[in-house]
Amino acid sequence: MSALLKEIRHNPLLWLLIFVPVVFAAAKFRPEAHTLLFVLSVLAIVPLAALLSHATESVAAKTGDAVGGLLNATLGNLTELVIALTALRAGQYMLVKASIAGAIVTNSLFMLGASFLLGGLKYHVQEYNRVSARFQAALLFLATIALLIPSAISEVDAVAAAFTQKLSVGLAALLIVAYGLGMLFSLKTHRELFASAEHAQAGEPGEAPWPMGLALATLAGVTLLVAGVSEIFVESVQQAAEAFGMTPAFVGFIVVALVGGAAEMASAFSGARKNRLDLSVGIALGSAAQIALFVAPVLMLASYFIGPTPMDLQFWPGAVVMIFVATLTACLVTNSGRSTWFVGVLVLMVYLIFAMTLYLLPPRS
Amino acid sequence: MSALLKEIRHNPLLWLLIFVPVVFAAAKFRPEAHTLLFVLSVLAIVPLAALLSHATESVAAKTGDAVGGLLNATLGNLTELVIALTALRAGQYMLVKASIAGAIVTNSLFMLGASFLLGGLKYHVQEYNRVSARFQAALLFLATIALLIPSAISEVDAVAAAFTQKLSVGLAALLIVAYGLGMLFSLKTHRELFASAEHAQAGEPGEAPWPMGLALATLAGVTLLVAGVSEIFVESVQQAAEAFGMTPAFVGFIVVALVGGAAEMASAFSGARKNRLDLSVGIALGSAAQIALFVAPVLMLASYFIGPTPMDLQFWPGAVVMIFVATLTACLVTNSGRSTWFVGVLVLMVYLIFAMTLYLLPPRS
Amino acid sequence: MSALLKEIRHNPLLWLLIFVPVVFAAAKFRPEAHTLLFVLSVLAIVPLAALLSHATESVAAKTGDAVGGLLNATLGNLTELVIALTALRAGQYMLVKASIAGAIVTNSLFMLGASFLLGGLKYHVQEYNRVSARFQAALLFLATIALLIPSAISEVDAVAAAFTQKLSVGLAALLIVAYGLGMLFSLKTHRELFASAEHAQAGEPGEAPWPMGLALATLAGVTLLVAGVSEIFVESVQQAAEAFGMTPAFVGFIVVALVGGAAEMASAFSGARKNRLDLSVGIALGSAAQIALFVAPVLMLASYFIGPTPMDLQFWPGAVVMIFVATLTACLVTNSGRSTWFVGVLVLMVYLIFAMTLYLLPPRS
Repeated sequence: MSALLKEIRHNPLLWLLIFVPVVFAAAKFRPEAHTLLFVLSVLAIVPLAALLSHATESVAAKTGDAVGGLLNATLGNLTELVIALTALRAGQYMLVKASIAGAIVTNSLFMLGASFLLGGLKYHVQEYNRVSARFQAALLFLATIALLIPSAISEVDAVAAAFTQKLSVGLAALLIVAYGLGMLFSLKTHRELFASAEHAQAGEPGEAPWPMGLALATLAGVTLLVAGVSEIFVESVQQAAEAFGMTPAFVGFIVVALVGGAAEMASAFSGARKNRLDLSVGIALGSAAQIALFVAPVLMLASYFIGPTPMDLQFWPGAVVMIFVATLTACLVTNSGRSTWFVGVLVLMVYLIFAMTLYLLPPRS
Repeated sequence: MSALLKEIRHNPLLWLLIFVPVVFAAAKFRPEAHTLLFVLSVLAIVPLAALLSHATESVAAKTGDAVGGLLNATLGNLTELVIALTALRAGQYMLVKASIAGAIVTNSLFMLGASFLLGGLKYHVQEYNRVSARFQAALLFLATIALLIPSAISEVDAVAAAFTQKLSVGLAALLIVAYGLGMLFSLKTHRELFASAEHAQAGEPGEAPWPMGLALATLAGVTLLVAGVSEIFVESVQQAAEAFGMTPAFVGFIVVALVGGAAEMASAFSGARKNRLDLSVGIALGSAAQIALFVAPVLMLASYFIGPTPMDLQFWPGAVVMIFVATLTACLVTNSGRSTWFVGVLVLMVYLIFAMTLYLLPPRS
Repeated sequence: MSALLKEIRHNPLLWLLIFVPVVFAAAKFRPEAHTLLFVLSVLAIVPLAALLSHATESVAAKTGDAVGGLLNATLGNLTELVIALTALRAGQYMLVKASIAGAIVTNSLFMLGASFLLGGLKYHVQEYNRVSARFQAALLFLATIALLIPSAISEVDAVAAAFTQKLSVGLAALLIVAYGLGMLFSLKTHRELFASAEHAQAGEPGEAPWPMGLALATLAGVTLLVAGVSEIFVESVQQAAEAFGMTPAFVGFIVVALVGGAAEMASAFSGARKNRLDLSVGIALGSAAQIALFVAPVLMLASYFIGPTPMDLQFWPGAVVMIFVATLTACLVTNSGRSTWFVGVLVLMVYLIFAMTLYLLPPRS
């Protein structure tokens, strides 16, 4: 427990934990103050996500590389998963899909681009393990194709919803199999190819891992807290967005993705500033691949059990274009294994183009 | 003749030749048993394709590298060409187009992916001549653009059929010119760049080439047999497909392409198991490029002479998306010149996504 | 002044300057002879563009590398800019957009492909600075995304024109910022990466730069002349096109782009023949990137001041496909830093496919 308190004392991000009780209190006494609840829940989710991420790494560090990597990879997007599950249970499928698409785009453009830019402002040219980056980019590319096919086919041929639904179930199964085989490949049969990146992910030097009991207890407790705060977040986000003049597409794509990924971004940016770009690229692309290969299919399958109706994997056409362009950009940019500040600028520009388009886009009638 | 018999004795695939007389007999006495005829004609085409492929290689081995390479490249897809010509004469343009698109997708995804996987299960990391792979991928990419432009333009702008028809003739001419220049480049002016791949294609070690007379006679006789069996295949395939619950798109894209390419696949997979990935990649990409650059334009031009009406090069939009994605995947994957089992899994997954989509796709009304 | 006369005596291209007074005279006395005026104005623009280009280089050579590079890059497409501004003032927005799209496609396909082909016919394999080529290709890719998003979004979702207009202004601002940062990167913070290309652009050996006064006077005088001839060109081009049986899309895309880029093409092709492919690739991709990142946004913003109504950045869907394919082709082809004649053939083939499509395309109703 003292390790947890010490951690909180040293990490200013965790001081935001004060907003966790505040948001629950506010939700109880001012349930109609949507804008306030939205702001408070964002402020509360960020430090919880950071705690989750640290607890996951601590468990991973104790269990050896293979199981640890598995845990790290599987729990890495726990925050996004919990938020999306809450939205799923509320039947807000537009928000679920927008947050899936947004998390892919935000991780592969904003997190990657900002890492390149922040690192490049400090170091002239940075190098990273291109084998590892290409592996993640290839996984992401595969997932993108799987996510886009139902949308592309039903866009060009007006097909029945039953077809889209059956196809979505099949694709979800394929994606989860590919995800499992990908872990087998990177953690077992060809782990030596990922040497640098894997080592880097084992935790930052100077951050001692927590004891196992504390880590597991934190994992369980914080997941419950995230679930509670997510409920307030999902309920308040649409009205708050209107108050701020944001479109629903912008909220799902940009705001939810930035909030859900805040903790990982902090790690990725800090890695870039320490010239450990392997870490940053691994987090950015790995997280995007995981959303597409694991979180998206799990949510789709979960909708059969906890959603009001089954959800399919069909996205609106603009999201399809954005996911495809984001993935293609990440593939082209990470192909060389080298980076400078201007590469970061280019990638961020693509993100800004998308964000601007979504911000201006009138709501779909 | 004894060489032919010896070949048949040693190659279990050729024992299927017994189905050639069987299918002709069945077509005569049971012309309405579509499902039976379909199964028998598939079983008969596969060994005939293997014989054709061996005869072509034998002629190529005798005539020196330049003419031999030319012959090998031009006759390599003879089976697909004969099947498609039969469908063309029957006016089944949907089937012709689906088999062109399917052959490109099947060769560049299934044949390539399965080669990577089969090779990768035996060898940790495999390397191949990336110059040669990039050349084939570039040719394929060009052909894809030429095939896609009429479809893309007429999709987005509702243009007249006369325009599509004129454009198709022009594109067919351009593709054949590009194909000819590509052979000039790879067989004459820059043949040293293709060293390893060319050597590998000259024939498998231990397989003695046949004498010239036997090879030419086999070439002529087997082509006639393939034409005869193709007629039965094309007539029975649609009804049989319905009996098996397959959509017409699935039959053209997947079944015809797998049957027509069976012999080449056997060579490609055997090359991969012997760590001669140059051979496998060359067959897979070369065959796909040849379908797009040579078979497709020849079929289109042939439709003016043997089809009921001229055929254009406009594909249905879903096929356009699949051809484009398959080509892009092949380009990205062969860029590095190295392969592991997981690369094969990824490429096969893309193929499975397409196959599943086509299987579930309701017939177009 | 004698330097100018000497230049004219040695450069046969400049003898075409005789058509400058001829076209003004013809416009005065035969204002209805559109076909004649079109031919004469083309013949007059080509040598003026060559003079502009030489004067810009002379100013650049005197002012030191940083300012010189800036000038060179900014004034390099002055001819295209002046022609487009003239069309803008006349309210011919279709022609302006077609000439922007056409200049990007022509530079990244025709100029690049013909350079590879001309160089490759003389040298077996040519190498060039791939860092520089990738930088230009990346900038071009970014600009393509920015130009395509409004068209893609408004194609798939029927959105209001007001949205497209607001988005266009934002994108124009982003593009100009990216262009400025790109110059900061290539001319200042990471100029050593561009060593070879920059040196090559500093002027051809044997061509002495002009004195500063002459260069500035030529710059000013020739710009005015280009503006005058452009006015005749823009007025006559549509009727002349009809007389030649060309569609408006073909004229804007192909004819205007070839005329506007004639001088740069002469430099690029001469570089390729001298085995200085860095120069050719730099001119081709750099010019395409500059049209997309600088000329297009400047024209859009200028439409608020000199056009009859504001112009947006939304292109017709066929142009979107062509720009995207051209950029992707340029990215894939320049990735390796090596070239042979067949690479040139492939790139030119893509251009021919586009040109043929535009030539045959019936006018949009």
